[in-house]
Amino acid sequence: MNSLKVIKIGGKVIDDEQKLDTFLKSFASIEGPKILVHGGGSIASKMGERLGIIPKMIDGRRITDAETLEVITMVYGGLVSKKIVAKLQSYGANAVGLSGADLNIIPASKRDTKPIDFGWVGDVEKVNTEWLSEMLNKKVVPVLAPLTHDGKGNLLNTNADTIASSVASALTKIFDTELIFCFEQSGVMNQGKLITEMNLLLYRHLKDTSVVTDGMIPKIDLGFSALKANVKQVSIRSFENVAELESGTKLISN
Amino acid sequence: MNSLKVIKIGGKVIDDEQKLDTFLKSFASIEGPKILVHGGGSIASKMGERLGIIPKMIDGRRITDAETLEVITMVYGGLVSKKIVAKLQSYGANAVGLSGADLNIIPASKRDTKPIDFGWVGDVEKVNTEWLSEMLNKKVVPVLAPLTHDGKGNLLNTNADTIASSVASALTKIFDTELIFCFEQSGVMNQGKLITEMNLLLYRHLKDTSVVTDGMIPKIDLGFSALKANVKQVSIRSFENVAELESGTKLISN
Repeated sequence: MNSLKVIKIGGKVIDDEQKLDTFLKSFASIEGPKILVHGGGSIASKMGERLGIIPKMIDGRRITDAETLEVITMVYGGLVSKKIVAKLQSYGANAVGLSGADLNIIPASKRDTKPIDFGWVGDVEKVNTEWLSEMLNKKVVPVLAPLTHDGKGNLLNTNADTIASSVASALTKIFDTELIFCFEQSGVMNQGKLITEMNLLLYRHLKDTSVVTDGMIPKIDLGFSALKANVKQVSIRSFENVAELESGTKLISN
Repeated sequence: MNSLKVIKIGGKVIDDEQKLDTFLKSFASIEGPKILVHGGGSIASKMGERLGIIPKMIDGRRITDAETLEVITMVYGGLVSKKIVAKLQSYGANAVGLSGADLNIIPASKRDTKPIDFGWVGDVEKVNTEWLSEMLNKKVVPVLAPLTHDGKGNLLNTNADTIASSVASALTKIFDTELIFCFEQSGVMNQGKLITEMNLLLYRHLKDTSVVTDGMIPKIDLGFSALKANVKQVSIRSFENVAELESGTKLISN
């Protein structure tokens, strides 16, 4: 089997044009099949603010109402996606920017409105791998925006980490797949030291001692799910030098 | 050779959700290979206004400055493109929304800054047909936004009629190609009557008598260029019932 890298790039890197460029140059230089999954950083929130759209929150969680979905579609599906594609093309990677609606790559179901109505949020139903593998085999680099669709004509907002994990897991049938979450730090840190390997026991300990908190928890959960779904390697690492071998924090199943 | 329809949909249809839906239902029901080319209607201008971006004009022509390019990328490449794709998917067409940067489909060159600096505007250099024909042969429906790229990392604003004509012309090597400009009227009209056929002589006469004016002139010029480039049929017709055989105003070369 060929190797495939599925790389998720975090919001703060996308927000910073210089950092994004550093990342994209390095990403483009990775040999072999690769997929980039991106969010939209704070650009979507800022664009929403500029348009006078008031963020709706319930219990501290953001609600995707119709207006917010439009902003997300513009920013994630348009501005961020096409900018990344144009940059990657200039670095010699034949990129294509896709949402989950394009080629029906990620059908999803709108989340139940009970107990909380999150609005136009989609939970991944499946990942159709046919076009992705066809493109990967012909050296195309898919760039995936965190948008799915319900098959009834509606786009849905879907978490980018979830997209990355789902896509990596689905493609294990065709490729030896590696899942990499890139962000600003070298990996998961404790008192300034990089944790190079993390299994479930250590993960629980780090949660108990509040070393791992907030947004890092669902990310690591998704990482362990991917390992269970036969993804060969999962790591959390810096966006810099992503083409190099050092692996930040590697999740291990034993 | 297989037949291919390249259909350009006009701004006023895109602006009206009901009309767009009527069009997309009919479009999805067309048998055989088809490509949809869209602009962004007045949504981009309205979005620019909401964001407080003042349109720059020189000699009555709009300038694409960096801010305007961002709005166009969001609206054409994101909002309009992905909405159309999600709708087409719900009508059974396996659509994919692409800009000219995606898969390097349309490399372009930034227009000369003399005599007028139009900003980030691109003139089509070529159309790469490999992925388009691959997708068309596998029943995928490409949905093209009026954006190209310069290969140096920059997106460029390119007229949607030009994209439609260039794509139709380039694909004549692989398909018997038909180019259809859809808008709100039944075709080119004179005193309430539909002109069913137009050759160059009649076209000149209609320009001389100001029946054909403004934006219709470059559109018809592009239509005649497409005929010269071996496109089999060019017509200008209503967005309604686009799957039916009546052809509005047909351009003929003799």
